[in-house]
Amino acid sequence: MSLVKLSAAEIEEMLASLPDWGIDQHKLYRHFVFSNFVDAWGFMSQVALLAETANHHPEWSNVYNRVEIHLTTHDCDGISERDFALARQINSLL
Amino acid sequence: MSLVKLSAAEIEEMLASLPDWGIDQHKLYRHFVFSNFVDAWGFMSQVALLAETANHHPEWSNVYNRVEIHLTTHDCDGISERDFALARQINSLL
Repeated sequence: MSLVKLSAAEIEEMLASLPDWGIDQHKLYRHFVFSNFVDAWGFMSQVALLAETANHHPEWSNVYNRVEIHLTTHDCDGISERDFALARQINSLL
Repeated sequence: MSLVKLSAAEIEEMLASLPDWGIDQHKLYRHFVFSNFVDAWGFMSQVALLAETANHHPEWSNVYNRVEIHLTTHDCDGISERDFALARQINSLL
């Protein structure tokens, strides 16, 4: 999968088909709210397996029922197709 | 376990016997560096079970092999014995 840094126009176009994600701190970003910690952790566990399988890991944080995920590709110092691929997989969990 | 907000002097005294923790953003704080994501995630999974059992949840973030944990007690708007208790349990994992 391409690690080429996407242009702002490309990102905008790809975001149009990726519900609930946006850009924050120059990274692909989505936040999630669950019923409680157990549900949030269950979600994170699924994301962890996706990330390890893809060898592409999120920058993420959790406080009780809330999870924030930032995706970026260090190799290109920007957002690449790998970030969008992982974001789509994450969306498919929900 | 007491949810009373600890004084600065009490916190300083308790920190003396809690290796590698400090104060950041008025919260009990420690960061951890592991060999890779799998090791970091394994550690986080253990902390998640401790936190859920104690019904006291961390504010935490992860980027690949790095984990940062902030502990605070919302009920007293400060650091309480519950935070130190969880921090000690976390240290005992390592």
